[in-house]
Amino acid sequence: MTGFDAIADQLAGQAIELPSWAFGNSGTRFKVFSQPGVPRTPEEKIADAAKVHELTGLSPTVALHIPWDKVEDYGKLAAFAADHGVALGTINSNTFQDDDYKFGSLAHFDRRVRDKAIAHMHECIEIMDATGSRDLKIWLADGTNYPGQGDIRSRQDWLADSLQQVYARIGDNQRLVLEYKFFEPSFYATDVPDWGTSYAHCVALGERAFVCLDTGHHAPGTNIEFIVAQLLRLGKLGSFDFNSRFYADDDLIVGAADPFQLFRILFEVIRGGGYGPESGVAFMLDQCHNVEEKIPGQIRSVLNVQEMTARALLVDTEALTQAQQAGDVLAANQIFMDAFYTDVRSDLADWRQSRGLPADPVAAYNASGYRDQIIAERIGGDQAGWGA
Amino acid sequence: MTGFDAIADQLAGQAIELPSWAFGNSGTRFKVFSQPGVPRTPEEKIADAAKVHELTGLSPTVALHIPWDKVEDYGKLAAFAADHGVALGTINSNTFQDDDYKFGSLAHFDRRVRDKAIAHMHECIEIMDATGSRDLKIWLADGTNYPGQGDIRSRQDWLADSLQQVYARIGDNQRLVLEYKFFEPSFYATDVPDWGTSYAHCVALGERAFVCLDTGHHAPGTNIEFIVAQLLRLGKLGSFDFNSRFYADDDLIVGAADPFQLFRILFEVIRGGGYGPESGVAFMLDQCHNVEEKIPGQIRSVLNVQEMTARALLVDTEALTQAQQAGDVLAANQIFMDAFYTDVRSDLADWRQSRGLPADPVAAYNASGYRDQIIAERIGGDQAGWGA
Amino acid sequence: MTGFDAIADQLAGQAIELPSWAFGNSGTRFKVFSQPGVPRTPEEKIADAAKVHELTGLSPTVALHIPWDKVEDYGKLAAFAADHGVALGTINSNTFQDDDYKFGSLAHFDRRVRDKAIAHMHECIEIMDATGSRDLKIWLADGTNYPGQGDIRSRQDWLADSLQQVYARIGDNQRLVLEYKFFEPSFYATDVPDWGTSYAHCVALGERAFVCLDTGHHAPGTNIEFIVAQLLRLGKLGSFDFNSRFYADDDLIVGAADPFQLFRILFEVIRGGGYGPESGVAFMLDQCHNVEEKIPGQIRSVLNVQEMTARALLVDTEALTQAQQAGDVLAANQIFMDAFYTDVRSDLADWRQSRGLPADPVAAYNASGYRDQIIAERIGGDQAGWGA
Amino acid sequence: MTGFDAIADQLAGQAIELPSWAFGNSGTRFKVFSQPGVPRTPEEKIADAAKVHELTGLSPTVALHIPWDKVEDYGKLAAFAADHGVALGTINSNTFQDDDYKFGSLAHFDRRVRDKAIAHMHECIEIMDATGSRDLKIWLADGTNYPGQGDIRSRQDWLADSLQQVYARIGDNQRLVLEYKFFEPSFYATDVPDWGTSYAHCVALGERAFVCLDTGHHAPGTNIEFIVAQLLRLGKLGSFDFNSRFYADDDLIVGAADPFQLFRILFEVIRGGGYGPESGVAFMLDQCHNVEEKIPGQIRSVLNVQEMTARALLVDTEALTQAQQAGDVLAANQIFMDAFYTDVRSDLADWRQSRGLPADPVAAYNASGYRDQIIAERIGGDQAGWGA
Repeated sequence: MTGFDAIADQLAGQAIELPSWAFGNSGTRFKVFSQPGVPRTPEEKIADAAKVHELTGLSPTVALHIPWDKVEDYGKLAAFAADHGVALGTINSNTFQDDDYKFGSLAHFDRRVRDKAIAHMHECIEIMDATGSRDLKIWLADGTNYPGQGDIRSRQDWLADSLQQVYARIGDNQRLVLEYKFFEPSFYATDVPDWGTSYAHCVALGERAFVCLDTGHHAPGTNIEFIVAQLLRLGKLGSFDFNSRFYADDDLIVGAADPFQLFRILFEVIRGGGYGPESGVAFMLDQCHNVEEKIPGQIRSVLNVQEMTARALLVDTEALTQAQQAGDVLAANQIFMDAFYTDVRSDLADWRQSRGLPADPVAAYNASGYRDQIIAERIGGDQAGWGA
Repeated sequence: MTGFDAIADQLAGQAIELPSWAFGNSGTRFKVFSQPGVPRTPEEKIADAAKVHELTGLSPTVALHIPWDKVEDYGKLAAFAADHGVALGTINSNTFQDDDYKFGSLAHFDRRVRDKAIAHMHECIEIMDATGSRDLKIWLADGTNYPGQGDIRSRQDWLADSLQQVYARIGDNQRLVLEYKFFEPSFYATDVPDWGTSYAHCVALGERAFVCLDTGHHAPGTNIEFIVAQLLRLGKLGSFDFNSRFYADDDLIVGAADPFQLFRILFEVIRGGGYGPESGVAFMLDQCHNVEEKIPGQIRSVLNVQEMTARALLVDTEALTQAQQAGDVLAANQIFMDAFYTDVRSDLADWRQSRGLPADPVAAYNASGYRDQIIAERIGGDQAGWGA
Repeated sequence: MTGFDAIADQLAGQAIELPSWAFGNSGTRFKVFSQPGVPRTPEEKIADAAKVHELTGLSPTVALHIPWDKVEDYGKLAAFAADHGVALGTINSNTFQDDDYKFGSLAHFDRRVRDKAIAHMHECIEIMDATGSRDLKIWLADGTNYPGQGDIRSRQDWLADSLQQVYARIGDNQRLVLEYKFFEPSFYATDVPDWGTSYAHCVALGERAFVCLDTGHHAPGTNIEFIVAQLLRLGKLGSFDFNSRFYADDDLIVGAADPFQLFRILFEVIRGGGYGPESGVAFMLDQCHNVEEKIPGQIRSVLNVQEMTARALLVDTEALTQAQQAGDVLAANQIFMDAFYTDVRSDLADWRQSRGLPADPVAAYNASGYRDQIIAERIGGDQAGWGA
Repeated sequence: MTGFDAIADQLAGQAIELPSWAFGNSGTRFKVFSQPGVPRTPEEKIADAAKVHELTGLSPTVALHIPWDKVEDYGKLAAFAADHGVALGTINSNTFQDDDYKFGSLAHFDRRVRDKAIAHMHECIEIMDATGSRDLKIWLADGTNYPGQGDIRSRQDWLADSLQQVYARIGDNQRLVLEYKFFEPSFYATDVPDWGTSYAHCVALGERAFVCLDTGHHAPGTNIEFIVAQLLRLGKLGSFDFNSRFYADDDLIVGAADPFQLFRILFEVIRGGGYGPESGVAFMLDQCHNVEEKIPGQIRSVLNVQEMTARALLVDTEALTQAQQAGDVLAANQIFMDAFYTDVRSDLADWRQSRGLPADPVAAYNASGYRDQIIAERIGGDQAGWGA
């Protein structure tokens, strides 16, 4: 077997978790443009996510965001998801929208606020216990806007102490995943701004603490695939938040801004043993469909990850290694690019059909009537959004 | 006269326009933290701006933002301002919050939407006629988020056509000021992304069209003082939106992130003839006080501009020119830095007192009771904000 | 005709000028690694460039750099080139390596140095007269390293004056092409740092002055295809220096860092009428093959331009316009990406063979024996380089 | 005691190591402009460094770079230095200028090259044994220019293995200090690109391995003082290479580009216990005086560090903590800025004179006749430089 046939099996297990909030309204500080048919409840978000999975076979789980997705009965929600063919996944905490968190949460100077944030994390872990989720994902908006506003060093110490208290409550089969972000909403110093900081905290916490890499959370020019390789080498890459960017944390459709970068990232994932369920590396999207439709936007995103995974799997690694170790720069680069430039779309369409999936999931969505149905049904109520 | 005495007179005429919206709530896409005492009406914003002017003597005018500051009777609003010791200034248009503007305004592919945006600009000019404002400031959110989404070239042509129709309505004593911005809220292509684009359009429009330079709207590393020097040389620098940034368009207090950059900018303003009322270059703030108090935040901002103006005026330009033309890099740099490092704060405090102003305007504000008063009075109603 | 057949004719006229200096040694300030077989004379550089053209059919002209390529008799050099199947192209001036140019050339504070630089430009034009070259390309290293070191404004005025004197000598069928660069070797203020500055000077000079866009000379995040579209719209895009970059002016093989960006640039070139000989837009490479072989590096580069041109020509512009004007973001993006993702390599190989060119020019080079030949022949003498 | 008097004692112990190579010629890939009087030998470099120390009292040690500063007898060189009032300091290795290192050194794919690089490090340690130096500083140019060129992951493993072999030879009173750099001379992937990578390797090595932070080696926008605080917290900040930058690794005079950033960095150094000899954090310069004079350039640099240290020591940390913990953003920022804006130059001049140093070291240098002397004496021979 060569070419696509040789990699087809490796594609079978791919799973890309969808974020419930990608189906709600989102925007910028200037304007959130609402869209018709947007979900109003966690159930409706799950239904939309399930539609993506139905058409692509790629997204068997849905991440929840607490409190945006709070419900009375998580067992019931899990059953609802199962009825729709998906499962509940990562629980995402939120410590950036309560007035108390204006100056931080886990890294706040005030113990009372830190305790409140810790309690929120504990609540999230209780939800995980109920939903059977493995990962608690912590992204912190903590930081300062002005030099002198906060004590950078003390905030690290407070953060470390708070994280310890959260971690203490993590179950044996659960994980704490700590995301880093270069900036925003803090505009001077962010308390977890880079992979090094997240890594140092995770090492201090223990073996069930891991780093979350959001592909949009780096300084301009950062070589993200290097970080992937490094974290895999150090055994601390927990999960991805996939999206793409031209400028800051633009949260565009993954692969939209720089498909070749996505290819390089996925190549290092595979190279470093981060591909596949047993790797422990979770793939997830984290995007904002501000001006485009949300459901087909998510479909496009998971397809982009799949297409680039296929290309990355196609790299002739044996020939590559030979060229690399011969110091043949041009040959090595060409072998690498040959895989990137290989058009796998038609093979993937066949592959999908062979598994009972539509050859073109976007076209299938457009033909499904689902759009019209949700626009008709979801009248009244409050559309989901970030509630900023 | 040497030192501060020699420059005192040049400080007398300094005027820095305040944006009405700086007194309303602002934030990020993640959260807008509201503050007690925030204005609910244009009049309350003007009252707050007037307080800044009362304490600093630096901000005799207030910019309005339409429709945020729409009122029935602009004559009455102007009179209200006059009663409070200030005047109405620049009129800022808004073509980014109506649902119709999702894909642009003056550069939209649909003539109907472009016409609507043009009509809005015309309405703003009518308001300028009523208020006696000189400048119509146009900042456009126009752009696209994805490659292929729009036709970059056609959008420029549409934009040029729309701007012509707006410019045609500009009065003889009025000016059109076109702001550029590197990115946000558009995340792939912005229709007026750089000074070159704004300049090219302004040249095409005519002699009453000018470029607005917002100090936070550039790519990382951009030498802003160079742009100042270039636009002054080309006769097209219309106005400044002052603020500061570490990352993107952070909209921090001017001078907060890089005081030396502010110094260099003001030096080039003075060097190029852009300082003082007869220069036609308008100084304005455009900031977001997300986590700090708004009124003292504006006070701090205008003081920062004043302090750096004083330092920039202190440069020994004769000695500087000699060192420059001798190729003495270190001496030229030292002469330049000597002015920057000169502590003018105490001289400025004396200067303020000699003019009946408080030596320390921030302390005076804190002692004034105004904060408690507005917190007590401004109960109920809707606090002003961006309404995103 | 659809697909590749429909665009084959448009590929026929493509010409990408090679820089003579790409065949010489290059490196960084840390080290220039020499390579065996590197040319020692302008003739040997031309022979190498001719080899690239022989194998690709894409590079009929060679740009010279004065004084690096100075010879006694340019007619003889042109004849030598013609004998090898290529012609002499753009003349590149050099005003950055003489000790007199330490503080600038055309923008220097000292008239004597400016006059010397102007005289050099005039000498270059004389060479153009002799070689029949159309374009004088001016890239200036002028700028300053420290705030205060130079007078930003005066330097612009001196530059404008110098350019006028150069332009006055440009023949009726010649052009002055002014390149801009964000930074390096100047580390504070560069005298022609952006397209706006180059554009403003070119407009002031006249209709035979144009902007040169080097794809590596922008701030991080800059949307280069926007600049392409804008300069074409303004009628001032004169030429390209193609290369690619991850960080600063890395001068890597074009398309190596971000193939999708190259695709977008070429799409706007075509969209804006900048493609083809009658457009007046010259394609050129400007690269440094520091660690890879130079001749196959140049082959790879011109092939990359050709491949991305083919993809860009494949965009279904009619469908794209429809989707754009329907506000269908996802459909428009997909139409755009469909062309980018189309693998044209096999069609191009056929197309080459149909024109008597090798299907795989890199493989053909490797099989040609040329490498061994030049390594054997070019013993002794001084290898060409930048002489920094 | 308040104000300057209260901090005077803390300034007494400040020591900023000078790099021998700062006195040699340097430049860019475009041109190295030589200067008259530049040293030709390690002894002449040391003499120049000693002159800086004589005039400032700030630079008691000189760092050597091997092989640039190789001598027969290091004991003799140390004695020469002692005669001139300074001592030999950090030994800097060089594994980027031998042809063997074209594709890397400690991270090279070829064991032979790695062994050669390790042997060079061992040689450097032998020199340290002879000179009594404490620190071996390792900056690696290792990396790749093209995607696919090298195996990112394997290179990390090779690097780790090589570092272990170097570390094994480090004496009980010696330290290995590993520098990171964002990019250059590698333009795609750098093997030690960020503090996290250096930190992870140092932790793996052991307690005598530390990170070196060069202030010019970060991505645009990186908050360097955060890294300082973090590395101090983790106990792994070994040393600084001070310089400044507007764009890439510009290697300008420290404090020249952003004095406020230097202030913030020094504040965090002091805050985190990194100030003073017992802290183990070494201050060093690493700069290129391309267009300015080298000796006064170094004088200016150490003075800039001293001035900003004084300002940073002046921060009223008690008041700052109160304001921070009250959530008073504006007050905290003002307290911080008050120290930055305090003009300490006249106090420092007095302080220098009280210690027998010239009030104005730059003026003293200009008056000393040393410049004329070295220009007259250093005729013939090869001026020191990087030998790129």
